[in-house]
Amino acid sequence: MRTPEQFKEKQGIDVFLRHRVRRLDPRAGRIEVEDIDKGETRALDFDKLVLATGARSRRLGMPGEEAENLFTLKDLGDGIRLKAYIDREQPKRVGILGSGYIALEMAEAFRTRGLETTIFYRGTRPASHLEPEIGDWIRKELDEKGVQFLPEHTPLSFVRNGKGKIVALETSKGQYPLDLVLSALGVVPNTEIAAEAGIGRGETGAIRTDEGQQTDHPGIYAAGDCCEVYHQILEGPVYMPLGDVANKQGRVAGENAAGGKATFDGVIGSSCFQVFSLQVASTGLTEKTARGKGLDVGVQNIEASSKVHYMPGAEPLLLKIVFERSSGRLLGGHMAGREGVARRINTLAVAVQSRLTVQSLSKMDFAYAPQFSGAFDPILIAAEQALKKL
Amino acid sequence: MRTPEQFKEKQGIDVFLRHRVRRLDPRAGRIEVEDIDKGETRALDFDKLVLATGARSRRLGMPGEEAENLFTLKDLGDGIRLKAYIDREQPKRVGILGSGYIALEMAEAFRTRGLETTIFYRGTRPASHLEPEIGDWIRKELDEKGVQFLPEHTPLSFVRNGKGKIVALETSKGQYPLDLVLSALGVVPNTEIAAEAGIGRGETGAIRTDEGQQTDHPGIYAAGDCCEVYHQILEGPVYMPLGDVANKQGRVAGENAAGGKATFDGVIGSSCFQVFSLQVASTGLTEKTARGKGLDVGVQNIEASSKVHYMPGAEPLLLKIVFERSSGRLLGGHMAGREGVARRINTLAVAVQSRLTVQSLSKMDFAYAPQFSGAFDPILIAAEQALKKL
Repeated sequence: MRTPEQFKEKQGIDVFLRHRVRRLDPRAGRIEVEDIDKGETRALDFDKLVLATGARSRRLGMPGEEAENLFTLKDLGDGIRLKAYIDREQPKRVGILGSGYIALEMAEAFRTRGLETTIFYRGTRPASHLEPEIGDWIRKELDEKGVQFLPEHTPLSFVRNGKGKIVALETSKGQYPLDLVLSALGVVPNTEIAAEAGIGRGETGAIRTDEGQQTDHPGIYAAGDCCEVYHQILEGPVYMPLGDVANKQGRVAGENAAGGKATFDGVIGSSCFQVFSLQVASTGLTEKTARGKGLDVGVQNIEASSKVHYMPGAEPLLLKIVFERSSGRLLGGHMAGREGVARRINTLAVAVQSRLTVQSLSKMDFAYAPQFSGAFDPILIAAEQALKKL
Repeated sequence: MRTPEQFKEKQGIDVFLRHRVRRLDPRAGRIEVEDIDKGETRALDFDKLVLATGARSRRLGMPGEEAENLFTLKDLGDGIRLKAYIDREQPKRVGILGSGYIALEMAEAFRTRGLETTIFYRGTRPASHLEPEIGDWIRKELDEKGVQFLPEHTPLSFVRNGKGKIVALETSKGQYPLDLVLSALGVVPNTEIAAEAGIGRGETGAIRTDEGQQTDHPGIYAAGDCCEVYHQILEGPVYMPLGDVANKQGRVAGENAAGGKATFDGVIGSSCFQVFSLQVASTGLTEKTARGKGLDVGVQNIEASSKVHYMPGAEPLLLKIVFERSSGRLLGGHMAGREGVARRINTLAVAVQSRLTVQSLSKMDFAYAPQFSGAFDPILIAAEQALKKL
């Protein structure tokens, strides 16, 4: 990694590490930054500004969240601290609050280290932002791999010992002794500086931008987990703090701050992750989101083999497609399986973004070899089945 | 497997195994079939007929091709015979004529059995129907795995011993001693019955059909390796004998013979295969084919990592996209690599068939997780690089 000095020399950019923004004055084009170590404050003038203040872990606001054995996982430092604590204190029972990407990926990490791992979740299935059918597959994977998933267990309070350490979690369905808690309840955007400066936020609570990543203050841009993103199918802003989205927004914001005319077209909600050996991938709208938008929704669920059944490594795969019944337009695709899932989803991502119908999708010419797919790819099978529901 | 009797009982379909069609009379709606074992001939009347006569291995027409140690590989029986011969005769040196899918897959099979394996090819690179850049990657894989690839070696004649067995191959660049020859020079459609009956064939030599798989004789359909297929980007018929295409044509022909109105939209040339650990996949036009069509062609080659470089199993991947410079329209995509290739190609297949431009492709929202892809998928990187060439 380069030092700030090397970076400046190479790029001509000043870098202030361990500095905190105290105040932003959009009209004057000035920020005040404080040197955290020295306590000194200085003012810096700007012509253009990019806000990339990111997000932070969401907190329950329950007493005990400051306990030394409660962790969140947002950045590398969090991970290093958590790992060091486990190495030092050798906890046996871990409780995870939440059931999204981080909760599930960390359940695998804890279990792989041999810890007794329990997920406490107020909902009924893991990854509740995805299709319930996918959630059922994840649940099965957790069960098989020895992670306890406790649905409809709403955290109520932490039980602490005399030293303030959490020793148990009180939930809506009883008390569970724990040695370590991971709070994985998602993130909230860091918008305090923007809010104080009067920069507009959307209904999502994140900073609102136009397609050039400019905020409602000319010359001030925002990118990444601190801001909203336009959803092409929902036709409105959403808060979707994902790494690749942040990356793309950052490039657009940077280019425009430097005088360019770049635009970011937004997202359709493509994502993938893995929990143990189960790959999960999703693009476009879920059935629920599509119905919420008032569309005439059809769905098609299929189970198929990831490749021709006689080939080594063939695994069952779940595919659910969501479409508009009146037009046949594909709205979303959702998959789970141990093989051939994550790299397949972008085929559906292009189809959704190209506004393809299931009629067209069912006629696609896909590459076929038995070690990679059946003569009819699962996507073709699902699309063809869907035709009967139009 | 069911016996013909069981099949008839179950499906109400007569099956004549070991029968040969002697004559087809389209006007009378009659075929004459001969029982191969008994030598008896009988006439069968039909209202509708589906020709699915397939293809056979192409022959060089060189003396010695009938030798007991020369094999072709078209069906399961060929494979069983070849395997039995190797088990029995223990050949040491195998020569392969040709350099397509079968030649390359069989090179792997021979090498895996420990045989000295040499590919003799009149061209310069393996898989010459694909991009030369892909051919170079295949060549490298063959070299690494100990298969000798001899380019510009045109087979001239076989040297045979007193028993008629091939002992060497005479080529345009010298003589090579061999114990076994695999002739893998592609296939030619079986169109004799159709030709004698006056059913039309196209310039490719294969049976011509309309989009309902009907030949130029009403009520007579054709499907599979015996017939042509419409190429959506070349906008004309091609001969592309592939399993998944045959499967789709067969369904359409069968449905229409039974009174339906199915259509087959044709292909864009999607295919994939594997040679040793190298996956190769292709969709749409190659640079050469696109130029041959007189298009204003742009290409973009990139090498990228199949997933984020720090993830275990990340492998370099070659991606070449072909596009029309004037419009940006994506015409084809071609990939090679040891990981994450075959399942990625259909993303480009949908893009080509949806007539997407590289401009649109570069803005797609793809699913990202570091174990599956970089924050910018190789496809996005290639599309973005291509923008500079429009």
